[in-house]
Amino acid sequence: MKVCFRSSVDPRFLDEYRRRHAAVWPDMLRALQDAGWRNYSLYLDDDGLLIGFVECDDFDAIRARMALTEVNGRWQAEMARLFEGSDVPPDQGFVALEQVFNLEDQLAAVPPGPGATSGR
Amino acid sequence: MKVCFRSSVDPRFLDEYRRRHAAVWPDMLRALQDAGWRNYSLYLDDDGLLIGFVECDDFDAIRARMALTEVNGRWQAEMARLFEGSDVPPDQGFVALEQVFNLEDQLAAVPPGPGATSGR
Repeated sequence: MKVCFRSSVDPRFLDEYRRRHAAVWPDMLRALQDAGWRNYSLYLDDDGLLIGFVECDDFDAIRARMALTEVNGRWQAEMARLFEGSDVPPDQGFVALEQVFNLEDQLAAVPPGPGATSGR
Repeated sequence: MKVCFRSSVDPRFLDEYRRRHAAVWPDMLRALQDAGWRNYSLYLDDDGLLIGFVECDDFDAIRARMALTEVNGRWQAEMARLFEGSDVPPDQGFVALEQVFNLEDQLAAVPPGPGATSGR
């Protein structure tokens, strides 16, 4: 499955968020990989909107596996003050978004035929 | 390149947006494919936040190629009223977000070694 989730970085700390995430601890990277996070990217806008995108077998499972690691606890503790609404750890504040369109899925349901590339 | 972009659907029209995007015109799907849009997905939250994710060689180029198609003009004209700030066509209101983290890129820069999977 491919999952898109959102969160909110405190706009006062965008630069610090960028700097920390440009050099994530190697053991945090390996823990993510070991927990099943694949093609994992984060995107940040100037208003603090944070978007995550990850491929995995089961989003709840990869989050649960990370939550059990010691390094994740240390990492999230250092990141917490950079987030808005930091009464919960950052990784527990991720809100998954509903997928409303996927090009390949819909193409697969459309039979190719005459005029396939020249309009209807 | 992988691109994440945002836009805003008018919250009054979320259901209509979902319904239209669950059944995009076949010629629109083929035009996207021909224009170089790959692994293209859209995600919608209840406040109207719309997130797009696409893989491509050049984001400006695939948007320019779509803008030249007749079907895109018809599609965007029908979608325009579903978006907030609809003084520009929806596909011209997409704002690309800055990537601040990619797991695979950073893992590639970390040499594997003893303890690679057991913390630092």
